[in-house]
Amino acid sequence: MVELKNSLYNTAAPSTQSIHGDDHLHATSEVSTPISVSTTFAYNKKEITANNYGLDQRYIYSRSGTPILTKVEATLSTLSEGYAVIYGSGLTAAFSVLVEQRPKKIALGSGYFGIKNVIEQYQRLVPNVQVVGLDCSYNDVDIVWLESPINPTGEVRDISSYALRAHAAGALLVVDATLAPPPLSYPFRQGADIVVHSATKFLGGHSDLLAGVVVSRAPKSAESMRVARSVLGTGPGSLDAWLLLRSLRTLSVRVQNQSQTATRLVAFLESHRRLAVVSACHSPSVQELAIGRRITAVRHASLQLSTTHCSFIETQHPNGYAPVFSIRFATKDQALFVARHLQLHTFATSLGSVESLVDWRHGIDSKEDPGLLRISVGLENFDDLANDWSKTLLALDAHEKGSAKL
Amino acid sequence: MVELKNSLYNTAAPSTQSIHGDDHLHATSEVSTPISVSTTFAYNKKEITANNYGLDQRYIYSRSGTPILTKVEATLSTLSEGYAVIYGSGLTAAFSVLVEQRPKKIALGSGYFGIKNVIEQYQRLVPNVQVVGLDCSYNDVDIVWLESPINPTGEVRDISSYALRAHAAGALLVVDATLAPPPLSYPFRQGADIVVHSATKFLGGHSDLLAGVVVSRAPKSAESMRVARSVLGTGPGSLDAWLLLRSLRTLSVRVQNQSQTATRLVAFLESHRRLAVVSACHSPSVQELAIGRRITAVRHASLQLSTTHCSFIETQHPNGYAPVFSIRFATKDQALFVARHLQLHTFATSLGSVESLVDWRHGIDSKEDPGLLRISVGLENFDDLANDWSKTLLALDAHEKGSAKL
Amino acid sequence: MVELKNSLYNTAAPSTQSIHGDDHLHATSEVSTPISVSTTFAYNKKEITANNYGLDQRYIYSRSGTPILTKVEATLSTLSEGYAVIYGSGLTAAFSVLVEQRPKKIALGSGYFGIKNVIEQYQRLVPNVQVVGLDCSYNDVDIVWLESPINPTGEVRDISSYALRAHAAGALLVVDATLAPPPLSYPFRQGADIVVHSATKFLGGHSDLLAGVVVSRAPKSAESMRVARSVLGTGPGSLDAWLLLRSLRTLSVRVQNQSQTATRLVAFLESHRRLAVVSACHSPSVQELAIGRRITAVRHASLQLSTTHCSFIETQHPNGYAPVFSIRFATKDQALFVARHLQLHTFATSLGSVESLVDWRHGIDSKEDPGLLRISVGLENFDDLANDWSKTLLALDAHEKGSAKL
Amino acid sequence: MVELKNSLYNTAAPSTQSIHGDDHLHATSEVSTPISVSTTFAYNKKEITANNYGLDQRYIYSRSGTPILTKVEATLSTLSEGYAVIYGSGLTAAFSVLVEQRPKKIALGSGYFGIKNVIEQYQRLVPNVQVVGLDCSYNDVDIVWLESPINPTGEVRDISSYALRAHAAGALLVVDATLAPPPLSYPFRQGADIVVHSATKFLGGHSDLLAGVVVSRAPKSAESMRVARSVLGTGPGSLDAWLLLRSLRTLSVRVQNQSQTATRLVAFLESHRRLAVVSACHSPSVQELAIGRRITAVRHASLQLSTTHCSFIETQHPNGYAPVFSIRFATKDQALFVARHLQLHTFATSLGSVESLVDWRHGIDSKEDPGLLRISVGLENFDDLANDWSKTLLALDAHEKGSAKL
Repeated sequence: MVELKNSLYNTAAPSTQSIHGDDHLHATSEVSTPISVSTTFAYNKKEITANNYGLDQRYIYSRSGTPILTKVEATLSTLSEGYAVIYGSGLTAAFSVLVEQRPKKIALGSGYFGIKNVIEQYQRLVPNVQVVGLDCSYNDVDIVWLESPINPTGEVRDISSYALRAHAAGALLVVDATLAPPPLSYPFRQGADIVVHSATKFLGGHSDLLAGVVVSRAPKSAESMRVARSVLGTGPGSLDAWLLLRSLRTLSVRVQNQSQTATRLVAFLESHRRLAVVSACHSPSVQELAIGRRITAVRHASLQLSTTHCSFIETQHPNGYAPVFSIRFATKDQALFVARHLQLHTFATSLGSVESLVDWRHGIDSKEDPGLLRISVGLENFDDLANDWSKTLLALDAHEKGSAKL
Repeated sequence: MVELKNSLYNTAAPSTQSIHGDDHLHATSEVSTPISVSTTFAYNKKEITANNYGLDQRYIYSRSGTPILTKVEATLSTLSEGYAVIYGSGLTAAFSVLVEQRPKKIALGSGYFGIKNVIEQYQRLVPNVQVVGLDCSYNDVDIVWLESPINPTGEVRDISSYALRAHAAGALLVVDATLAPPPLSYPFRQGADIVVHSATKFLGGHSDLLAGVVVSRAPKSAESMRVARSVLGTGPGSLDAWLLLRSLRTLSVRVQNQSQTATRLVAFLESHRRLAVVSACHSPSVQELAIGRRITAVRHASLQLSTTHCSFIETQHPNGYAPVFSIRFATKDQALFVARHLQLHTFATSLGSVESLVDWRHGIDSKEDPGLLRISVGLENFDDLANDWSKTLLALDAHEKGSAKL
Repeated sequence: MVELKNSLYNTAAPSTQSIHGDDHLHATSEVSTPISVSTTFAYNKKEITANNYGLDQRYIYSRSGTPILTKVEATLSTLSEGYAVIYGSGLTAAFSVLVEQRPKKIALGSGYFGIKNVIEQYQRLVPNVQVVGLDCSYNDVDIVWLESPINPTGEVRDISSYALRAHAAGALLVVDATLAPPPLSYPFRQGADIVVHSATKFLGGHSDLLAGVVVSRAPKSAESMRVARSVLGTGPGSLDAWLLLRSLRTLSVRVQNQSQTATRLVAFLESHRRLAVVSACHSPSVQELAIGRRITAVRHASLQLSTTHCSFIETQHPNGYAPVFSIRFATKDQALFVARHLQLHTFATSLGSVESLVDWRHGIDSKEDPGLLRISVGLENFDDLANDWSKTLLALDAHEKGSAKL
Repeated sequence: MVELKNSLYNTAAPSTQSIHGDDHLHATSEVSTPISVSTTFAYNKKEITANNYGLDQRYIYSRSGTPILTKVEATLSTLSEGYAVIYGSGLTAAFSVLVEQRPKKIALGSGYFGIKNVIEQYQRLVPNVQVVGLDCSYNDVDIVWLESPINPTGEVRDISSYALRAHAAGALLVVDATLAPPPLSYPFRQGADIVVHSATKFLGGHSDLLAGVVVSRAPKSAESMRVARSVLGTGPGSLDAWLLLRSLRTLSVRVQNQSQTATRLVAFLESHRRLAVVSACHSPSVQELAIGRRITAVRHASLQLSTTHCSFIETQHPNGYAPVFSIRFATKDQALFVARHLQLHTFATSLGSVESLVDWRHGIDSKEDPGLLRISVGLENFDDLANDWSKTLLALDAHEKGSAKL
């Protein structure tokens, strides 16, 4: 079992870990790591004897590991306070957890529909696997699969309380923290046993790579998963892995900036929504009213905080909330009008990228509210984004008035 | 269900198919396809109405497909006379066939050990899966998994006869044709139902990409596998897929050249082995004798042909045999001596690449003969390779004599 | 002449420009731009008649332009408030300015030695080219080549005053602003005619791409340079250009963070240097003294500001100073001791990357002070970097004391 | 001065040289070379003393060299029987020869127009540079710039005789052998002093990389050019260089196959042209006549050979003629009709790629015959290409007859 982490950086700040967590793995003098593509590695002719076939070499065949995979895993392990194994996508990572743990009963809440599809594939193979709700009894439950923050709302679940319940029932707590990677959240601190991420999202951050991560608290479990990955060939592509390493170098500045902008944008939209609601008393300018008039709800961890007594939210997010929130309109048509009219928010699925994205989740997941849009906030300037929303919401209001007149 | 193949090229020669099989999929004027990396695709704002959310778009999220994947699959479908789906590795492809077919009983012969590991992973999930030998009764067998040509010997199995037996028993015949991609072999012509390849090998051909392919005779099965791949995220990486497309352009010239050189090299080695055996009668030069003296066997489809009445071998290989053969020595030490001394054959695992490779399979798979080396012949010149063997085998002979004296 | 800029974003914030400056150039629905590699582009068969050979097509041959080059240039044009042309390296860009302008007399100050080598190559071709100092008379000078901020000190020159003098003499003012790209500085606002950057540094920002930029105030000059680039083939590589586009997406957060950390680090080191100087009066702890004792000077724009009346410095740097500074020791041995002992500052040449770099400039440019180190501050956490300096400077002090005793 | 070549392979066959010419430069156990992207290289901390700053390290900054550039140059040096330096494009390579040699008088024949543009750029810098024809007196000529084979005809010039004349006049003979790289031609064997290639063409071979090569007979000249390249930043991009290395692995099989197919296609077209001319006597089928009826000329080295006594052609081309030929029609309209109707020949500029290309050179270079098409033959099957021509030429004939009736 190879220890990939360099303990030197365990106490460094996340931004430092992101850049130096793989320093001990540089194989040449190249300061920026080359893009490893080789699928096979020459045996060291000198060391190989009849009794030593070089199987102590770190790399033999790329399905089992490459210099880039090792560097990414070392860096992510340090950053995530656990033992990371990377995969070809977030759902590949999720499936790999199921294959590793072979649960017979899974507790699962609402959230990203993809995990439900993965469990269905798993159920096609393993007979009699039961899925119960997060708030059901955990009797006989093997795995509690918790999403926090929640997709698509950006709200937070209380990891500690689920950890207590899961552990009391002898179940593992898996936390999908895709919407808030380090340094935004650290689920092991609240008792998670396994953390999964779609690295395609914030860890990758540029909409140009597909990868997933499983982080185990225990190094042994990570090693066992790495063996299965080696057999099934479920690691990421060479360029995907290299781009992920490149992306990790800027992780902290990206996600902290996105988190701050998102939280400001949520406050901006929510204040306009409220303004419209209470406008009779305050009589603000007509335009100010029109901006918020069609919004029926804004949801995000920052609003959760302000309306309920939820100290766990702050605890779970020492460096900011997820840069993802949701906004609701009365109708599907209104939601789609907004998605189509925003200029600085690309109308496409996915989240976590440098460019702001708006997605109408009902289109992909019919269980979602047809009036809801999921917003993933990018690295654009707050004023520019707020302005984009103002113009779009005013256009919606004008359009609705026009329609009403007809 | 999208038909990826351009029927225009169904009757073209393989070299033409390799280059033009994806002509109809060019999205811009770029003659060489760009490396698609985007994980998400913008919805067409004009076409999207409340009732048409763009789900008729070909690309939405890269886990489900990308322009490169489509081009590779179109080209491979045309080349392989079936419907191709690509995966992150050859073993990922194999596992996906199992997940799709969910067999309860599998008939499997000797050959590449990786498939056994995959079946073990499958058995961890699906209870009571039985594995029987290729020559056992096919009673209740769901899948006959046939490797031809066989790894590591390069010899051939009679696909037609296995197809007859499999189909008589109601089983599917899966053929792993990794060692002989088109234009070397076309297993559907002998009755295969599914063909799998490790595209990392000859299809990729440069030791720099990891990918696998499943080719189905039926388009429906391919489409169903593509859906599962989309859920499980088991497709290849972006650069791997692009490099595979680039590699396909030269497939025919590469593998036909490699096949010819391999067949000549096999003849060269076998003639020297025989010469040493019969030397008493012919008294050739001492050096000529020394070259072949330590070889105990050479195995390859071309030698199969010459010694038995096997017309199926020629039929299955209209354009040449696998560029892979095996050579056996009396001891592990002799085999490793040879592997270490060859200059133009890189001592590393894998096969199918532009550079010749020598692998001591016993090191990876303890069931293999410790005296056996697997040779994958590259694009080097025949004379240079033969010379490399002569020098190495002479050195081995000298070394053995020296050892004997001590 | 193609106008690449999208005027929509002229008034947006730099972070928004970095992400959306090329929105109008998306050719497919891919949200993240594919890596264009094609060297040739198919003619549109429908539009081509005998009289219209498709030469109105944007792309014909990649030496003349590619979709990626266009996107990078559009984004950089918007960001830089001019018309950008990109090249294979910063020095290629500099040489291209000389070829375009064909100066007979150049005024040049101290700074990066590379430009001197470029001028030498130019002088090998063009006879009788004179080079005079920045502070000499500009009589007959064609080009004033000004570096600001200055390499390696990180200090600033007063662009406006040089612009006045240059223009009064009929000369062009070229500003090499490599150490402070947008949003840190905007030399056109102070009267520059042409701005050049080594995009390998902060614009690229990850030590993994080689490129240069010339930004002209006039679109005509940019177009003329693009024609010469097309003839001489001096554009950047395909991956270099694509990585540059990816890097621009994070430009603002990267360089503003690096600028802030650098300014804090400069203050930290300078305060320790002063503390040691004035220690007799203040009697701080021995260790505090030891940190700054061996530093003979720290130089950076932020210190320039505090010691002289230089309002131009603030004006030229609305969003922060260069993330590059220099530190001087008494001897070459001391400087090299520090360069070798720093852990979080990679001892390698270059600057502008995510990882902090330390370079001993005398090794490359013998005119530089042998006691001087150039520091390029990366995205690591300030405390971690300050701690790295403290440990290293204490080790230096201990080492010097040990040496003194011997 | 670093000797890059491994003399071990000087006597190997070209296909072996292509694959093993850089074996001695593998830096890690990776069998397929990683894509080097680092722009800077860490100094070896142990070796660096105050007197040894690591300047003996092979790599310091990527503008001066990278592991990939070195490998490409080592392989090309061995293949080309000289000392290779690579550049960002073929014209960059040509310009670099001029900068290195600073000729005052150049002898230049007809051929690729790009070199004329490069000389114009050179003339803008160096005063009074004269250009004379290839057949003029070489009095005072510094450089004889010879293209062989000639673009666009694919015909050959007698290198030996030009070498004699050039050397008698004290001039250097530069041969642009882009249309016939090794193993098709070896201009040093006929007395060339410098060989240049656009590596974008056959050396690259896939229309996906831009690069150029200068090969010097003298290692000193190569080293001097490498220094200038380092100053001017005119090397190729990182991916371009890596793809070139990948392409070299298949060089021999690609170009020999293309050469054979081209020579057969030329024979096919020429025989149909002649058939039409002499049809009165032989009365072939009407369709057979119609194929060749509109062709006014076919030009290629293979036809040169058959009509004149030119033993130099065979001597210069031990392994085949250029895979490029030209075909002429009576009018511009006819030529464009053909270019538009060919299915397996992509209508785009450039040459040397895996896909067949057809270009109407008059569109780019108005000095070319408007009825001429340049054909670059790819790796498609001969019968498929011949069939493509038959259908297109029959369509042309039908179209012309239809037009005639109107």
